Amino acid sequence: MSDHVYKKIEIVGSSTTSTDDAIRNAVAKAKETVRNLRWFEVVETRGHLENGEIAHYQVTLKIGFTLD
Amino acid sequence: MSDHVYKKIEIVGSSTTSTDDAIRNAVAKAKETVRNLRWFEVVETRGHLENGEIAHYQVTLKIGFTLD
Amino acid sequence: MSDHVYKKIEIVGSSTTSTDDAIRNAVAKAKETVRNLRWFEVVETRGHLENGEIAHYQVTLKIGFTLD
Amino acid sequence: MSDHVYKKIEIVGSSTTSTDDAIRNAVAKAKETVRNLRWFEVVETRGHLENGEIAHYQVTLKIGFTLD
Amino acid sequence: MSDHVYKKIEIVGSSTTSTDDAIRNAVAKAKETVRNLRWFEVVETRGHLENGEIAHYQVTLKIGFTLD
Amino acid sequence: MSDHVYKKIEIVGSSTTSTDDAIRNAVAKAKETVRNLRWFEVVETRGHLENGEIAHYQVTLKIGFTLD
Amino acid sequence: MSDHVYKKIEIVGSSTTSTDDAIRNAVAKAKETVRNLRWFEVVETRGHLENGEIAHYQVTLKIGFTLD
Amino acid sequence: MSDHVYKKIEIVGSSTTSTDDAIRNAVAKAKETVRNLRWFEVVETRGHLENGEIAHYQVTLKIGFTLD
Amino acid sequence: MSDHVYKKIEIVGSSTTSTDDAIRNAVAKAKETVRNLRWFEVVETRGHLENGEIAHYQVTLKIGFTLD
Amino acid sequence: MSDHVYKKIEIVGSSTTSTDDAIRNAVAKAKETVRNLRWFEVVETRGHLENGEIAHYQVTLKIGFTLD
Amino acid sequence: MSDHVYKKIEIVGSSTTSTDDAIRNAVAKAKETVRNLRWFEVVETRGHLENGEIAHYQVTLKIGFTLD
Amino acid sequence: MSDHVYKKIEIVGSSTTSTDDAIRNAVAKAKETVRNLRWFEVVETRGHLENGEIAHYQVTLKIGFTLD
Repeated sequence: MSDHVYKKIEIVGSSTTSTDDAIRNAVAKAKETVRNLRWFEVVETRGHLENGEIAHYQVTLKIGFTLD
Repeated sequence: MSDHVYKKIEIVGSSTTSTDDAIRNAVAKAKETVRNLRWFEVVETRGHLENGEIAHYQVTLKIGFTLD
Repeated sequence: MSDHVYKKIEIVGSSTTSTDDAIRNAVAKAKETVRNLRWFEVVETRGHLENGEIAHYQVTLKIGFTLD
Repeated sequence: MSDHVYKKIEIVGSSTTSTDDAIRNAVAKAKETVRNLRWFEVVETRGHLENGEIAHYQVTLKIGFTLD
Repeated sequence: MSDHVYKKIEIVGSSTTSTDDAIRNAVAKAKETVRNLRWFEVVETRGHLENGEIAHYQVTLKIGFTLD
Repeated sequence: MSDHVYKKIEIVGSSTTSTDDAIRNAVAKAKETVRNLRWFEVVETRGHLENGEIAHYQVTLKIGFTLD
Repeated sequence: MSDHVYKKIEIVGSSTTSTDDAIRNAVAKAKETVRNLRWFEVVETRGHLENGEIAHYQVTLKIGFTLD
Repeated sequence: MSDHVYKKIEIVGSSTTSTDDAIRNAVAKAKETVRNLRWFEVVETRGHLENGEIAHYQVTLKIGFTLD
Repeated sequence: MSDHVYKKIEIVGSSTTSTDDAIRNAVAKAKETVRNLRWFEVVETRGHLENGEIAHYQVTLKIGFTLD
Repeated sequence: MSDHVYKKIEIVGSSTTSTDDAIRNAVAKAKETVRNLRWFEVVETRGHLENGEIAHYQVTLKIGFTLD
Repeated sequence: MSDHVYKKIEIVGSSTTSTDDAIRNAVAKAKETVRNLRWFEVVETRGHLENGEIAHYQVTLKIGFTLD
Repeated sequence: MSDHVYKKIEIVGSSTTSTDDAIRNAVAKAKETVRNLRWFEVVETRGHLENGEIAHYQVTLKIGFTLD
């Protein structure tokens, strides 16, 4: 078995509903253009506030994938 | 347009149900006394355990707001 | 009242459904063998991806408990 | 001579022209409401981009002042 | 039992005698104006030197208190 | 309004004149190939010395942009 | 001479009197069940406040010991 | 001489034999698609264990290269 | 397939010959008493010097294993 | 070509005018006594406030130079 | 008044009695060979254990002094 | 036995062959001018790339030695 090499990219997902949904949105977007997604790491969780309410949850992920 | 100045305060929200709910409780409390809330940043997530169960989720936020 | 001493252990919970569920799974497992659980601290949130979907959320906790 | 106690607050200054100007704007705003400012520490430098240009430099400071 | 919300403030205590005394001075000052102090976290320990001797120990604390 | 997803890339700008100019050079280069630039974060500031003088200021930025 | 291997455990000592006493209490507790203690590293200093006074100093240590 | 701009990408190399070999594999893979590689920075070293043995060393690098 | 839970322990391996050998010694020692080792993370690399030479390389690992 | 060895020293430059000027003053001072200066890294930016104005910008650098 | 430049050195003080005494021993040693000491910053606190007791407290300081 | 005081210096070793060799080169250079070397700590590992190959491994160490 060969030695794999991976690349990590940094993606920020946002969601009006939850932090987990922001993670899922980030992964879903990455999936559109990158194959062989393998893992993610949360590096920052923040959000945008409007009128004293949470307008968007924003989660920054590093997403790792296999380089062919 | 003028150069805005913001202040960040550090608030710990707690919740018996979820980490996201702890975030919402922190923001709701800040909203009671501070106007022009603009964003939050999660700086710590922890919780209190009782009888081997999660009694409270506790999330520390920095909350930024515009200084008038 | 005496001066308590606590120990912290590092546990990684996983879940197919949410980050909060991964936290709960880690605490539930610790409860099986450790008494007097007192608090947890989230130290890392990551996950495993399969076919472009989140297969597991993985959350690393430090869990503190009282030493008798 | 007595033992001084200080408080630190976290302020984000912005500027359309430079990072140093953002620092000065943060300090100038703090000066409006706080006496006895003693020092600042830069904790983050970032900025807002519009049309591929830097619209605002944003510098987060901790500002220390003497508590009377 | 309700979900508590806490605020953290950052205070620097100084002392001519010891680091622990600097901590106590910071807490004593916070107590003058803030009710319901709950915990502190040491974030930095430093000091001022004069004539090759320690003139002041300076300890920066985050102090958490319950928001009513 | 939909949930935006952003990508962050890491760019190092250099300049013979100032740290702010190094930031501007990094942004200008990113603008050549990336649309919808939204913000930058300074992650490192360093420089190259020659003959005891500053030959280049080098500033590493994370630059965030909207994924279409 | 053989290549030693060590294990580190994380212990939180508390004390009503001082941070150093909290360190000593943590070490004394570890000594009850672990042989060949070799070193400690302070990783966090905090405390519990009651009625505006320091009720407990709490110091988290990593304690290293030789594995036989 | 003009002011260079660099980009950093994050690559994880793996190897069955050594950490240095994992570094070399990461660089070799980057070389296949990126010109003008200039430097690397190790950001994480870890590995995969199987049957109590090290199956793969995994080293995460940031790799910097000149943007034309 | 069930949701796995893992535990991480912190082990320091030493070696007179190399940093990789110190990693291997740490893993070999862990293997003696822990089943189902899954991964390691390097958290610190240091060493002991005697007579101006490297007497021991010392590498601190976090080692993760599956809890049954 | 031989394998170079470098030393890093930590210098704090101050300036009444700008952060970049504080960097230049630190480098200029290092140049008085150290040959073969090669690079600098900014590790902290802070400043001294007097009468609500910035009296000094203070920038801490690590400065690397070749050991002959 | 001119723009001062400072240098920081890193000193580890040890003491058989307390962490504060280890700080004082580090400063006292620095005073023997360096003039114009201005401040210190604690960067690490650890200690050596023998027979289950604290043999030495070891505190690492950065010590800043004015360059003439 | 007296309370020892140590100094730490920061040295960058480079090597065309391996990271461990870069460590050894840094220690060997320190040995030329400093007596009583006691330990080292790796603080950064990086390298220089030329023609898509690793030209130099560069490892930054803190080296501690006893002050007489």
